[in-house]
Amino acid sequence: MATGALLWQRYQDWLYYHPGLGLYVDISRMRFEDALVSQLQPEFVKAFADMTALEAGAIANPDEQRMVGHYWLRNPELAPTPEIATEIKLSIDSVTTFARKIHTGEIHPPQGGKFTDLITIGIGGSALGPQFVSEALAPDRSPLTIHFIDNSDPAGIDRVISRIQNRLNTTLVMVISKSGGTPEPRNGMLEVQAIYHAQQLDFPAYAVAVTGAGSQLDRVAAAEGWIARFPMPDWVGGRTSELSVVGLLPAALQGIDIQGILAGAKEMDIATRVPDLQTNPAALLALAWYASGNGKGEKDMVVLPYKDSLLLFSRYLQQLVMESLGKETDLDGNKVYQGIAVYGNKGSTDQHAYVQQLREGIANFFLTFIEVLHDREGKSPEIDPGVTSGDYLSGFLQGTRQALYENHRDSIVVTIPTVTPTTVGALIALYERAVGFYASIVNVNAYHQPGVEAGKKAAAVILQLQTDAVNALKGMTLSAPVTIAELAAKIDAPDRVEAVYKILRHLHANDRGVVLTGDLSQPGSLRVAWVDK
Amino acid sequence: MATGALLWQRYQDWLYYHPGLGLYVDISRMRFEDALVSQLQPEFVKAFADMTALEAGAIANPDEQRMVGHYWLRNPELAPTPEIATEIKLSIDSVTTFARKIHTGEIHPPQGGKFTDLITIGIGGSALGPQFVSEALAPDRSPLTIHFIDNSDPAGIDRVISRIQNRLNTTLVMVISKSGGTPEPRNGMLEVQAIYHAQQLDFPAYAVAVTGAGSQLDRVAAAEGWIARFPMPDWVGGRTSELSVVGLLPAALQGIDIQGILAGAKEMDIATRVPDLQTNPAALLALAWYASGNGKGEKDMVVLPYKDSLLLFSRYLQQLVMESLGKETDLDGNKVYQGIAVYGNKGSTDQHAYVQQLREGIANFFLTFIEVLHDREGKSPEIDPGVTSGDYLSGFLQGTRQALYENHRDSIVVTIPTVTPTTVGALIALYERAVGFYASIVNVNAYHQPGVEAGKKAAAVILQLQTDAVNALKGMTLSAPVTIAELAAKIDAPDRVEAVYKILRHLHANDRGVVLTGDLSQPGSLRVAWVDK
Repeated sequence: MATGALLWQRYQDWLYYHPGLGLYVDISRMRFEDALVSQLQPEFVKAFADMTALEAGAIANPDEQRMVGHYWLRNPELAPTPEIATEIKLSIDSVTTFARKIHTGEIHPPQGGKFTDLITIGIGGSALGPQFVSEALAPDRSPLTIHFIDNSDPAGIDRVISRIQNRLNTTLVMVISKSGGTPEPRNGMLEVQAIYHAQQLDFPAYAVAVTGAGSQLDRVAAAEGWIARFPMPDWVGGRTSELSVVGLLPAALQGIDIQGILAGAKEMDIATRVPDLQTNPAALLALAWYASGNGKGEKDMVVLPYKDSLLLFSRYLQQLVMESLGKETDLDGNKVYQGIAVYGNKGSTDQHAYVQQLREGIANFFLTFIEVLHDREGKSPEIDPGVTSGDYLSGFLQGTRQALYENHRDSIVVTIPTVTPTTVGALIALYERAVGFYASIVNVNAYHQPGVEAGKKAAAVILQLQTDAVNALKGMTLSAPVTIAELAAKIDAPDRVEAVYKILRHLHANDRGVVLTGDLSQPGSLRVAWVDK
Repeated sequence: MATGALLWQRYQDWLYYHPGLGLYVDISRMRFEDALVSQLQPEFVKAFADMTALEAGAIANPDEQRMVGHYWLRNPELAPTPEIATEIKLSIDSVTTFARKIHTGEIHPPQGGKFTDLITIGIGGSALGPQFVSEALAPDRSPLTIHFIDNSDPAGIDRVISRIQNRLNTTLVMVISKSGGTPEPRNGMLEVQAIYHAQQLDFPAYAVAVTGAGSQLDRVAAAEGWIARFPMPDWVGGRTSELSVVGLLPAALQGIDIQGILAGAKEMDIATRVPDLQTNPAALLALAWYASGNGKGEKDMVVLPYKDSLLLFSRYLQQLVMESLGKETDLDGNKVYQGIAVYGNKGSTDQHAYVQQLREGIANFFLTFIEVLHDREGKSPEIDPGVTSGDYLSGFLQGTRQALYENHRDSIVVTIPTVTPTTVGALIALYERAVGFYASIVNVNAYHQPGVEAGKKAAAVILQLQTDAVNALKGMTLSAPVTIAELAAKIDAPDRVEAVYKILRHLHANDRGVVLTGDLSQPGSLRVAWVDK
């Protein structure tokens, strides 16, 4: 057979199609042999069994002794206890009711009228999911304009506030933090609270908490009488929380059909529950990933949705995939250094950014195209006779896939009919399950993130050093500026001179009482003193 | 010496500091031996010589027989001829004058008043540079609100227009395309033009062209009498065009100080012209990249600015680095498959997305932290006693760098005092030069992009297939629907059944006259017919 005919046959052999969702998964341009498929069959049997145990309420996150229940969110009947099922249903109802009351003005700012804007304060899954869904689905005239504070950057917070202009008194604030103790959302909340107070606005009358029942944040919100509190169950992890209150509440407030998202995810879950590799779209993805990177993440996953509104899908997947799979040890305690690096923005735009390298340069990746069949609402003008800008976009995708394949670069295509709540919910569920399967096959815990703690602890050490250094400096006199090494020795951190130097440099730059003198290019020669501000 | 003391010494030994810019480059946490530095010395001698030749006007892009002159843009005295120097100065003047006239209303919409919005239509460097600079530097109350059309996505174009609401009659349109023939900007222009016409707006009275003198676009703009035309010189490549009219015009229109950007780049160029590895910040970066990936891109470059406004810097660098270095052949014609994959968003946000994998998982990357010393305008509230949210951000950076290093993951830190036009210009120039040096060392042409053409040509083939398929279908009768293979054979593309199928599926989904019947999960069994719309 000619090459084209062989590929067309392979395309048909491996094509997955979901009639209800109109969704296709095509892994025919990933080069793997039938032998690999046979070899992985037992692994997939294990993966399907893990999935069943997970959905039945197994302690799938042993580190934290937690169940992992994001699949129940869109199908509460699956929950392991009636209490959890009821909790899920009540929480969806409460989101819907709350959004309706905000939209009608039944819940309103203290001075009356309606809320116009929404600031959400959260990081990680509490930001990436809502950002992705907002970009994909928010109507152009949303009942509430959403703003994200997803960092501890003072200037970033100032910019959000500045963009809201004079509408702060009609701006709802949603603080999302499971423990209430994660520094970034805590800092964001304290900063925003201070700004409301400075404008004589009663912060609790604008504030909503999404947090674990009984958490620090929950207690503060209760004590201060915030507008509402929504519980975050402990069996939902951050990166799979988009279909919990974390994602549903901002979506509903923006007028997005959350029932559609839930329905799409539920449909996809049913499809990915089929314990058969070749007819399970998530298993097909996991197989393709495994084949490409030898089960060791040897190739990066480049994700290119050919649709502007899906721009943030790759960033969303970056967290879902990397935080789930990027693990030092496997479930048996062996050092494995697993993971798959994920990046990408959108096509065809990225063709003019780095497809040069993808096509010709280092072949350290496989590509995932996300194709959307429907171009736009309404008719398209003709750019050339009989040809629209959507035909070009479609042609760019096919052409790039072909050009890459000819140069021995593999790719997957996931095709959806159009970008709707249903298909977005389905995409989220498809990748959640694919990550779960892949983790089972390479034998890692997809549901913890021990490495995140290391950075937090290291940061806490830095902040303690800062406090110690400032206290020591305040106890000295201006007539005796010291070297940084001397100061570090004085606070019992003689081996951390560099860290102390960085701290002082930052405080100096912000006019915080620390004064550095001398040659800035020679940090070892600098002298430091304190000047009361 | 204790580890901390050794590292502190290494930090000081390798620290680069630019007093005028207040900019630091720290490669001390990249693990390389002195032997490598000695080994690369002759390569850097060559790189410095290449730089000198480039700046003197050598044909550095032999494919296209072009000079590469982006360094002249911020220092016209360097240009190889007085004509080019004059051209650069006139072009900066014309940008400044045009922006002033737009701001004052001297140039205004046909009905009077002032322009309120700006749509820029461009792709690749014509979008990424302006997007990065806008996000980094645009004032919160910009004289013109900018909107980007950087794709051929019909729904994406519709969304931009929808967001402009009823201000289209005060919206300036800037079309950026060197040849005028790149499909994405051409499609964007034709779509936007059609929308203006549909609203009875005289498009030429709103339109500005940035294009090569005498190009197709230039001729159209001249013939139709557009507001203005700005020439794009052929010695500036897309990914290094931010400091040409391509970047300066949208920046100036947004009220950004373009003289500051140019001055910062000029200062950095002077610093990176020093022919000494250890005191040249761009050479230090190139050295560190080489050391990390063995000169073969074996490690990805993760870029994390710890500052919200620099979010798009990594996306900007993704193009600059990957399109410049991602090459199949070296300058001697050997197959080398070069490149460095670049990704990243911002810190500390990404710590909650994928630093889990960076710290514990597959060690296939090095990290570049971009640190900004100054936290915000004005004073910060205290989050904890004596501690601000900016201290946290700084602590996260230091802590993450330390935690990664302890786990044998290397990193670079580039530190700037604050995000200003000057430092942004300096960052752009720093990385332009680092890419140039690295390309010299690994012996690839940094200034062409032959692989981009392949995707375009493949797309053109698809569009031709579409036209052929539609014409063939129109010639048939409804009573005789055919299989896709039959149609492909009829248009002399028997080996391209899959491509024809994809084309038909897309046309079918958009109600464009093509009707597919049968079982969608079995593409080989489908029948296709034409129905006149």
